Amino acid sequence: MEQIGSNGQNETLETQELKDHAGQQVKIHGMIHKIRDMSGFAFVILRTKRDLVQGVFTKDSSTPDFASLQEGQSVVMQGEVVLNEKVMNGAEIQIQHLEILSRPADALPIVINRKQLDVPLDTNLSYRPISLRNEKERAIFKIQEGIARGFRDYLISQSFTEIRTPKIVFAGAEGGANIFKLDYFGKQVYLAQSPQFYKQTLVGVYERVFEIAPVYRAEKHDTARHLNEYISMDFEMGFIKDHTDIMAMEVGALKHVFSLLNKEYSKELALFNVKTPVFDTIPAIKFMEAKQILEQQYKRKVTDYYDFEPEEEQLICDYAKKKLGCDFIFITHYPSAKRPFYAMDDDNDPGTTKSFDLLYNGLEITTGGQRIHDYKQQVQKMLDRGMNPEDFESYLMIHRYGMPPHGGLGAGLERLTMKLLGFNNVRHAAMFPRDINRVTP
Amino acid sequence: MEQIGSNGQNETLETQELKDHAGQQVKIHGMIHKIRDMSGFAFVILRTKRDLVQGVFTKDSSTPDFASLQEGQSVVMQGEVVLNEKVMNGAEIQIQHLEILSRPADALPIVINRKQLDVPLDTNLSYRPISLRNEKERAIFKIQEGIARGFRDYLISQSFTEIRTPKIVFAGAEGGANIFKLDYFGKQVYLAQSPQFYKQTLVGVYERVFEIAPVYRAEKHDTARHLNEYISMDFEMGFIKDHTDIMAMEVGALKHVFSLLNKEYSKELALFNVKTPVFDTIPAIKFMEAKQILEQQYKRKVTDYYDFEPEEEQLICDYAKKKLGCDFIFITHYPSAKRPFYAMDDDNDPGTTKSFDLLYNGLEITTGGQRIHDYKQQVQKMLDRGMNPEDFESYLMIHRYGMPPHGGLGAGLERLTMKLLGFNNVRHAAMFPRDINRVTP
Repeated sequence: MEQIGSNGQNETLETQELKDHAGQQVKIHGMIHKIRDMSGFAFVILRTKRDLVQGVFTKDSSTPDFASLQEGQSVVMQGEVVLNEKVMNGAEIQIQHLEILSRPADALPIVINRKQLDVPLDTNLSYRPISLRNEKERAIFKIQEGIARGFRDYLISQSFTEIRTPKIVFAGAEGGANIFKLDYFGKQVYLAQSPQFYKQTLVGVYERVFEIAPVYRAEKHDTARHLNEYISMDFEMGFIKDHTDIMAMEVGALKHVFSLLNKEYSKELALFNVKTPVFDTIPAIKFMEAKQILEQQYKRKVTDYYDFEPEEEQLICDYAKKKLGCDFIFITHYPSAKRPFYAMDDDNDPGTTKSFDLLYNGLEITTGGQRIHDYKQQVQKMLDRGMNPEDFESYLMIHRYGMPPHGGLGAGLERLTMKLLGFNNVRHAAMFPRDINRVTP
Repeated sequence: MEQIGSNGQNETLETQELKDHAGQQVKIHGMIHKIRDMSGFAFVILRTKRDLVQGVFTKDSSTPDFASLQEGQSVVMQGEVVLNEKVMNGAEIQIQHLEILSRPADALPIVINRKQLDVPLDTNLSYRPISLRNEKERAIFKIQEGIARGFRDYLISQSFTEIRTPKIVFAGAEGGANIFKLDYFGKQVYLAQSPQFYKQTLVGVYERVFEIAPVYRAEKHDTARHLNEYISMDFEMGFIKDHTDIMAMEVGALKHVFSLLNKEYSKELALFNVKTPVFDTIPAIKFMEAKQILEQQYKRKVTDYYDFEPEEEQLICDYAKKKLGCDFIFITHYPSAKRPFYAMDDDNDPGTTKSFDLLYNGLEITTGGQRIHDYKQQVQKMLDRGMNPEDFESYLMIHRYGMPPHGGLGAGLERLTMKLLGFNNVRHAAMFPRDINRVTP
């Protein structure tokens, strides 16, 4: 019998501390990212958890033989730390020993060790297991980690409870055809398009809840902004006066996200020369106002008074940026006909809902609003739409037995990442994107 | 145009601060959980985010009329805070005004406002949207939040990167028949049984990664310990010496989880009279040693030398508790034949793997181990098992182009919750359990 304690730390150094060890002998482990062979010496760049670390190999010091080194090997590098302002981390290692822990079987089929991965998107995605080893590619998802973490940390600070709701569901929340079907022991079930029913349900339990989890849309379009599986950052809260309480909570969350990114992810942001948006408030205009701005200020012939076309979202953001000085803009009061059956209508503005989208640099990244909490009102709206309330019996329990006024939103993590980093295709912001043509790797 | 700032806070009080406001007029919102009608006065118990708060209604003070109050209403309670050691939070409210924000359409079909929900499990689950409003039921998932949060916080402190990997996959990681199939625009795909391939892949990118997300097993058994969709807490780390580094990381994570629960979830733990396990180290024995203990100390006739039967897991835990003084025990060196194709064999102990399970109070809650990192070795093991390496081309990229020695584990969040709280059925620890008979609510 053995006893296992929690002291299983590696005895090698975390590379962000390198500078503090100037003049000392250290061990660092990592994968060989790049070898630059000079005359008489070589640079061996290690890829560690979050850094690239430069080692200098003097060819006559010579354990092991330089010729045995190869990109893709996992090694422990031992040597003296020497300050050097010109390199990453402000220090490099004069290599005295390199222990090889594992070796690749083949040389890489694409170049991953230049700053920018210089291959077409489709090649990048097909080789994802190794293209993600590129410095900038992996930084994207480190930043994405930070966005989700900031969203979560903020909501926890606001007394939200984190929930995990099922993705195998008996009914779709959004309706329509873009839902994946699944055989479940002989029953037809679906993959959740959103945690809508469950997060509303849990407002009746915890008042404020959030979830960061995958959702599924069987989109048949092959566009630059749709994924068939994506990460939705959802929250839902009770005891609101109207949809503006939800919007205010999102403004707070976004500010916290950008503040966390600047504090803990500046290294990765710097690779993209990205500055996070600065704002104190986010402007909000009504849907019909936005359409008027398109017609009057952008001379656009508006044909669809129920939704925005992608180009219109871009023009509205152009307006927000130039006239209102903000990268973000809320659009409120979407037409009732285009919002789901659970959306709360606005009696002061007939035909519209207490709903909103948030646009960011030309793209919708959030949809939210107040929901109906009254049982009769919800049943009536279902009947008006030709839905059968009996199909939603368990969902309607919350209305039947009492719900506070409430609302919430869903924000797309990949879209937010995409727009922050200035990508033209959301697939750049998905580690392993699923679209109509791709389910591998 | 409007401007939305982040100041959308409710002006009502968070109830855990109640005592600090003794003698003051406050407003608190919540749902009426219980009304206890006495002569001349009544107790109105509000359910807030995390507390039950007692209001005292003197019937002659009388706005609104007492008769209009009803359980399930959402209200704002206004009145003076009076210290009272005998009630929750150490203070109650002398109600001066109650504003009703919303009303239920019907009285509840089950009693949720006694301390213990006194209905059969199946009724509890069928009425989940409202049974979760019971004080103890909702505490289960608050504790579950804490477990996941502790796991996550610990790994973040150990330089792990949080990942989110696809659940729609092209191949199953575990193999076998218990995998859900899905039509994906004419292709057959699967729901992920585990993030195995992706988390290994991302060790090559970030060295240490973790994910807390749903996984899917098309289990046809209807047992007290299986769910068809559950939350797996996974991590995977590189540059390990062997599987014991993984075990040590889990010991650290568990200690942190229990410490966080005691610090921030003691209110919920108290409802279950639960003390978290205390341990400095966790004992580890080999699979064959465990079988010998069963034969010699428990006089059990062992018939299966490849795996444990549920009763054997219970006896081993009995041994761990009584002889080794620990609620947990690691079992290592499972037979190679029963571990997946990516498990690393132990050359020092032929026929076994550098793998482990963690048992807790009679149940397996974690499976982990070291993985094969060498390309040829991995391909050979696939061929030995009659698998076609070409089916795993994108997974094998990581071995082909270089991987450090690595390993990881997956831990079931619901099982850990179940065992901590002493439930006899894992469904008690799943908000909306999916099993062979149930996909609703």
